[in-house]
Amino acid sequence: MEYMHGGDVYRNPVEYDFSININPLGMPEGSARAAREGVRLSALRYPDWKSEALCRELEKKRGIPAEQIVPGNGAAELIFALCQFLRPMRVRLVAPTFQEYEAACRAVEAKTVVWPLSAAEGFTLGEDFIESIRGEEQLVFLCNPNNPTGNLWDKKFLLRLAKQCRRYQTYLCMDECFLPFLRQECQKEYTMLTELEQYSNVIVLRAFTKIYGMPGLRLGYLCCSNRRVTDGVRRMLQPWNLSIPAQMAGIAALKDEGYLEQTYCLLEEEKAYLQRELLNGLADRIFPSSANFFFFYGEQALQQKLLQKGILIRSCENFSGLSEGYYRIAVRSHEENAELIRRWRECGRNLQHGGGKWQNQL
Amino acid sequence: MEYMHGGDVYRNPVEYDFSININPLGMPEGSARAAREGVRLSALRYPDWKSEALCRELEKKRGIPAEQIVPGNGAAELIFALCQFLRPMRVRLVAPTFQEYEAACRAVEAKTVVWPLSAAEGFTLGEDFIESIRGEEQLVFLCNPNNPTGNLWDKKFLLRLAKQCRRYQTYLCMDECFLPFLRQECQKEYTMLTELEQYSNVIVLRAFTKIYGMPGLRLGYLCCSNRRVTDGVRRMLQPWNLSIPAQMAGIAALKDEGYLEQTYCLLEEEKAYLQRELLNGLADRIFPSSANFFFFYGEQALQQKLLQKGILIRSCENFSGLSEGYYRIAVRSHEENAELIRRWRECGRNLQHGGGKWQNQL
Repeated sequence: MEYMHGGDVYRNPVEYDFSININPLGMPEGSARAAREGVRLSALRYPDWKSEALCRELEKKRGIPAEQIVPGNGAAELIFALCQFLRPMRVRLVAPTFQEYEAACRAVEAKTVVWPLSAAEGFTLGEDFIESIRGEEQLVFLCNPNNPTGNLWDKKFLLRLAKQCRRYQTYLCMDECFLPFLRQECQKEYTMLTELEQYSNVIVLRAFTKIYGMPGLRLGYLCCSNRRVTDGVRRMLQPWNLSIPAQMAGIAALKDEGYLEQTYCLLEEEKAYLQRELLNGLADRIFPSSANFFFFYGEQALQQKLLQKGILIRSCENFSGLSEGYYRIAVRSHEENAELIRRWRECGRNLQHGGGKWQNQL
Repeated sequence: MEYMHGGDVYRNPVEYDFSININPLGMPEGSARAAREGVRLSALRYPDWKSEALCRELEKKRGIPAEQIVPGNGAAELIFALCQFLRPMRVRLVAPTFQEYEAACRAVEAKTVVWPLSAAEGFTLGEDFIESIRGEEQLVFLCNPNNPTGNLWDKKFLLRLAKQCRRYQTYLCMDECFLPFLRQECQKEYTMLTELEQYSNVIVLRAFTKIYGMPGLRLGYLCCSNRRVTDGVRRMLQPWNLSIPAQMAGIAALKDEGYLEQTYCLLEEEKAYLQRELLNGLADRIFPSSANFFFFYGEQALQQKLLQKGILIRSCENFSGLSEGYYRIAVRSHEENAELIRRWRECGRNLQHGGGKWQNQL
């Protein structure tokens, strides 16, 4: 079977795309303007291979020293570069999770050791996961909140995990691409960005793609206090890995103060709306999500049904650890969400299936 | 010493940049328009991870089957990905040449075996180079025309080289990023794109960056008839390595029929002008160039002198195989070229040096 990503609007007739988890506000207007100016400059020069202006702005806004930041052509590029630099023999993953960790491991022929998350336990992780880290793997990937389940792991748990990893000389790569969808005061309780100085074995990934609504431009960054890691990852990358439009859009996004607040307000309202509707007979079970998407279990063939109505949702059956009936939908603008619900109800309910396998719970 | 690239306008006060070899016409207007539209779409979707539309257009225009094409975030990304896939123990390079081959070899800890090109022989390659290929290296990089020297190797020579490489199970990677600056009827006599079916060990790199004047957008491609290679290189890359603006600008560029003819006319005129001026007391020796740049030997500290006048040229002293006094300048628009010559003459000639080390020749 061909490897299938979300967001494949190129080979499907899609009017509304709920399969990719990007900010429904779209790109900040300042970023779009900067990117267009970046197109003009792109005819005149190469991108700054040091990304100095972007790294300085990140240093100012995130409090991470510029030299501890490696920008990438999307966070996905950095996942590959990290694996290409570390060349681990074995890598610990949880399942289900973002599929590019596994793809990057395949690229360097690393064996993946998968820790299954169980639906019955709401896809959480317990202390046994921490205790199972015994130096057999050289690298652990963890996505927080997790994609596609929306689970969040708190800092107390993560610090114990980071300590255990350090004890066994294991790198811990925290993918925080969806964390910025939490209000900034909440992020503090979950982000490992503030712990990098203490844990030189911890690597944090962040992206502009999702929170700043620019998936087509490609921009992410990796942070680590261990210079061996940042130098090594840089060595795996061509010098001009960021485009000028992406660099300029990123800088402009960091300067936009109002955009995030607007995002939080919209998401709070729309998550409440979608949750109500999903619980009202559409999904069999929805899982609590700390991100800008919902993960749920529902009737079979729902993706195809909705696709016939011009709506693309993410079927999660090809995620390792999941099976048919699991889906992920992004939280979009109210107009789009209402349209999703309207067309979904039009599909009617598959009576064969009848629901009830899961008790709805949040 | 810090690794220095051309085009570092970010840390130098530069009015005119002659250090990067891009089309002086700038991006085709259709590409700029498409890229701006691409910025808008970038808020809504990920790039097509298959780059289907771009590959189909390339197939149409270059006659290479779409499945034999791997698009990259600039050709530089593909140089790294090729090395990461092949993981050669030893790689054959000539010197001087484009520096990213060596950087990519360093990334995978491949030993580079350098064949020095001699200034006295005009940096050419002879049959002894072909005969020296005996399977000690798994990969050979050759840039045609060569950067920074401007040398061109013809197809008869290259076919003998490809055959020798094939006999010894060695991959030959031809970097043809500057070849499109030759008129299309001339390219035929030099390109290996037409020989891919015959030589499954040959890999060709091409870029939009230079010929279509879009260095800031990043777009290149790799062609090979050996599916093991194209699949392998793809496996090293994240799925979304091209931005939407780059994909769309590339497609639009391929559809612009008049742009290349305009480019050839401008270059012919301006190369003649610059050559006359350089020979008229500015350079000690200029080397025949088949590309859109001149490579010459001249007075010491010329780069610093011109930089004080707002002009950046490429000092080639940090190229392996070269030393102080070698420089490369791009051919720009007439206005820019005239400005270069005017300011250069203002610098006056360093009398200590006095020229004459080389007899001018073309």
